[in-house]
Amino acid sequence: MAQKPSIPKGTRDFGPEETAKRNYIFETIRDVFQLYGFSQIETPAMENLSTLMGKYGEEGDKLLFKILNSGNWMKDLTPADVESGEYAKLTSKVSEKGLRYDLTVPFARYVVQHRQDLTMPFKRYQIQPVWRADRPQKGRYREFYQCDADIVGSDSLINEVELLQMIDEVFDRLGIRIVIKLNNRKILTGIAEIIGEPDKLTDITTAIDKIEKIGEDKVVEELLSRGLKEKSIDLLKPFLNMSGTTAGKLDFLKVQLADSPTGLLGVAEMEEVINETESIGINAILELDTSLARGLNYYTGTIIEVKARDVEIGSISGGGRYDNLTGIFGMPGLSGVGISFGADRIYDVLNSLELFPSTATPSTEVMFVNFGSEESKVAMKMLKEMRKAGIMAEIYPDQAKMKKQMSYANDRNISHVAIVGEDEIKANKLTVKRMADGVQHTVELKEAIRLIIDYRQQELSE
Amino acid sequence: MAQKPSIPKGTRDFGPEETAKRNYIFETIRDVFQLYGFSQIETPAMENLSTLMGKYGEEGDKLLFKILNSGNWMKDLTPADVESGEYAKLTSKVSEKGLRYDLTVPFARYVVQHRQDLTMPFKRYQIQPVWRADRPQKGRYREFYQCDADIVGSDSLINEVELLQMIDEVFDRLGIRIVIKLNNRKILTGIAEIIGEPDKLTDITTAIDKIEKIGEDKVVEELLSRGLKEKSIDLLKPFLNMSGTTAGKLDFLKVQLADSPTGLLGVAEMEEVINETESIGINAILELDTSLARGLNYYTGTIIEVKARDVEIGSISGGGRYDNLTGIFGMPGLSGVGISFGADRIYDVLNSLELFPSTATPSTEVMFVNFGSEESKVAMKMLKEMRKAGIMAEIYPDQAKMKKQMSYANDRNISHVAIVGEDEIKANKLTVKRMADGVQHTVELKEAIRLIIDYRQQELSE
Repeated sequence: MAQKPSIPKGTRDFGPEETAKRNYIFETIRDVFQLYGFSQIETPAMENLSTLMGKYGEEGDKLLFKILNSGNWMKDLTPADVESGEYAKLTSKVSEKGLRYDLTVPFARYVVQHRQDLTMPFKRYQIQPVWRADRPQKGRYREFYQCDADIVGSDSLINEVELLQMIDEVFDRLGIRIVIKLNNRKILTGIAEIIGEPDKLTDITTAIDKIEKIGEDKVVEELLSRGLKEKSIDLLKPFLNMSGTTAGKLDFLKVQLADSPTGLLGVAEMEEVINETESIGINAILELDTSLARGLNYYTGTIIEVKARDVEIGSISGGGRYDNLTGIFGMPGLSGVGISFGADRIYDVLNSLELFPSTATPSTEVMFVNFGSEESKVAMKMLKEMRKAGIMAEIYPDQAKMKKQMSYANDRNISHVAIVGEDEIKANKLTVKRMADGVQHTVELKEAIRLIIDYRQQELSE
Repeated sequence: MAQKPSIPKGTRDFGPEETAKRNYIFETIRDVFQLYGFSQIETPAMENLSTLMGKYGEEGDKLLFKILNSGNWMKDLTPADVESGEYAKLTSKVSEKGLRYDLTVPFARYVVQHRQDLTMPFKRYQIQPVWRADRPQKGRYREFYQCDADIVGSDSLINEVELLQMIDEVFDRLGIRIVIKLNNRKILTGIAEIIGEPDKLTDITTAIDKIEKIGEDKVVEELLSRGLKEKSIDLLKPFLNMSGTTAGKLDFLKVQLADSPTGLLGVAEMEEVINETESIGINAILELDTSLARGLNYYTGTIIEVKARDVEIGSISGGGRYDNLTGIFGMPGLSGVGISFGADRIYDVLNSLELFPSTATPSTEVMFVNFGSEESKVAMKMLKEMRKAGIMAEIYPDQAKMKKQMSYANDRNISHVAIVGEDEIKANKLTVKRMADGVQHTVELKEAIRLIIDYRQQELSE
C-alpha cells in the first residue's frame, strides 16, 4: 500500500469551512476596494527571474522559489560548475523563472509593460497568492495570499486619506477594532538631520523600530554600537518618548524640527492626512508613531501600520507611499501609495474573537432523503424548483439507511431535511424538518420553499 | 535605461476588464456549484513531485513545472551526473516539488490525506489555476484556471443526473446554447467484446475518437495498422455510423450488445441517466455519441463532453465517472464522478457571441471632480455618504485640468460625474452629470444618491 500522501511543508490545504471563511475575508476586502473605485488585475504566478531578482535584497533572492527549466535543464551546466559548488551563481543556468514573492514588484512590472493602455492615476487591486521559501513556523507559510490596493500616478494626499478610510471600512465590516499607526519618512529624515546624524537614518530607524520589544536602554546601547554619538542619542531621546494627543505630538515635532525643511514637510503632510481623515469621520484610532519604520528604504512619505486592539498579534495591514516603484523597470518619477491586507492574520483575529458570522460559511439549506428510485424521481423534480427559487439544495445520492443520511445532514450542517415518501407523493406534498429543533411540517412545495427562505432571512437578521 | 519588462511565454496578465469578465464566469460557475450542495476547497499550488509524477503518463511528467530545491540545489549532483546528460533521471536530485498540473490528482491526494475528517459522499468544488509546460499556442496557455466539481463515495447515477443539470444551468445562465455528448465506457467495452477484440479497447477508442477529424476510411486504415482483423472492423462499422433518435440508438445498442453483460449494463446506465435528466427537464441537447472517448483509461462509466452550438471551438466542459481515483494513493474502491469547466474557452465563446452582460464589468458609478482643497473637503464628505449608500464612488485625486479629469472618467467608463464648486457649496448641493447623454441636475445629496441608484437599476433591468 502506498504511503499516506502529504503536501510540502509550509503549504496548506483549506477544507470547506476554512475556504468559506477565507472567501468571506477576500470578499469583504474586494467589496471595499471596488466601492472606492479600484479595479482588479491579475498577474501570472510565474515571473521572469530578471523581473524578481535584486528587488527584495540578498535575503529575498534566496527566498524566491525558482522554476527548473523545462526539457534538458542540465544543458548549460558543466562538470566544473558542479565541482565549484557555487550554486547561487549557477542558478541562472538551470532556471529562468520564479514564483512571485509579493504583488508589488509584479504590479510595477505590469504598469511599465502596459503603460500605453493605462489611464493615470491608475487604481488597481490584486488578491493573489505569493510564495516565499522562508523557514515555515507558526503563522508563517510558504504560500499565502496578499490583498493589495495601490494608486500610481498621483501624489495627492487625498489618496492617503482614502486608503485610511478603506482600512477603516474593511475592519469595520469585519468587526475588528483597530489602531492605525502613522509615520512619515520625511519626519524620520528630519529627526536624523536635527540630531546631527543625517547619514545614520537607517541605523536610527532600525534601532527605534525595536523600542517596544527591547526597551530604551537596549536601543541606546544598539545606537552606540552603530556609531552614533552620545550627544546625538540624547537629542534623539525626546522623540522616542513622545506621548499625549496627536495635536500635542504635532506641535512638539514642529518645534523640534523647525530647522529641517524636510522634517517640517513631513509634519505638514501628517497633519493634513490626520485632519482630513478625522474630519470625514473614522472609527479607528489614528496614532502618530515616530517609531514606525516598516521597510523604510522603500517608503518615501506616509507610512501606515494597522494593529488589532483586542488581540495580541503582529500588524494586520500596512502600507505607505513610495516614489520610485517603477524606476527599477526604466519608468522613473511615478509616485504611488498603497496598502496591503494580511488575510492569514485577519483570519486568526476573526477566529480568536469569534467574529465570523454564520453566513460566512454557507451550506446546503435542504437535503432530500433518498428512499429509492421511485421516490427520488419525485424528489428531484421538487429539488429543481427549490433551486430555481435560489435555495441551496441536494438529494442524498444513495438509498442508504435513514440514520446514515441524517448523520450526513448533521455533519454538513444542513438546516432542513425534506422527506418525500409514499404518503407525501399521494398527497402531492413533502415533509420539511428543521434540524435545529426537529419541528416538521407536511406542506405543498410552494409552502416548503417559503418556510426555508423565511428561515434563511431570520438567520441573516440575527 | 532598463529593458522593457515582460512575462514568461504562455502566461498572461489580466487587466481590469478581462479580470472582471473572468470573475463573472467564475462566479456563475461557483453559484451553481453551491446551489447544488458542493463545498469549495483549495489545495496548494505546489505538490510533492511524488504526488504528481507518474499520474499523467510519460508526456505529462515532462510537462510538469518543477521547483528548484531551495539553498544548495546542487549538493546531490556530481560532475559525473552532468557528464551523463541524463537530465530526466536526475531531476529528482535538484527538485522535490512541482506545480499542480490539474485539480484531479491534488483532489485525490486531499481525499486520502484527510479521509478521517470527510463526510462521505464528499461533494467538493475547486476553482484554481494549473500549470503545464506545454508549447504555448493560440488558446493554449501555461497557466490557466480549471473549475471542477466532483462527488466521491457514491456510485448512484443520481450524481450523473445532477452534474448534467449543473452543466445545463451554468450555460443557461451564461446564455450559451450547448450540446452535451454522452458515452459510457462499459458500452465501449461491450463493443470491443462483441466484435471479438476485447483486448484492443484502447486501440479502438483512440481510432474512433478521430472519426470526425479524419473520416471513416482513415479510421479503418488505422485500425488495420493497429492489428484489428478485417472481420472485426466490419462488425465495428455499424457502431460508427449510428444516427437517429436517442431512443433508436439505445434500441440498436441493446440488440447489438445482447451478448455482452458489461455492454448492456452500460446501455442501461446511459438510458437511466438520459431519461432521468430529460424527465426533470433540461435546455441542452443530450446526444448519445459512442465515438466519444476522452481519456478513456481514466473513466469507468459515464463520459461527458460539452460543445457550444453557435461557435466552432473544442469542448467547453467535460467529465465522467472514475472508479479508482484514490487507489494510486493507497485508498482503493472509492467511486467518483466529476465535471470540469474550461474558463478560457468559455471566455472566448462569450466574447465572440457578445454575451458578456454590461454588469459583468462593474465600474465606478460617480467621480467627483477635484477643484482644489477647499472644494474637495466638501466633496469627500459627500463621497462618504455615497459609498455608505453602496455607490461605487471616487474623487479625482489631483487638482488637474477639467479636460484631463473628464477624460479619466470617460476612459474608465464612469457613468456619472459630480461637481461640487463654489455655487454648489453655498447652496449645499451638488451637480450630477450623466456621462451617457450629458444631462445634469443640481440637487441635494440625497437626491443625487437616488438618481445614481435609479440609473443602476435601469442598467440592470436592460
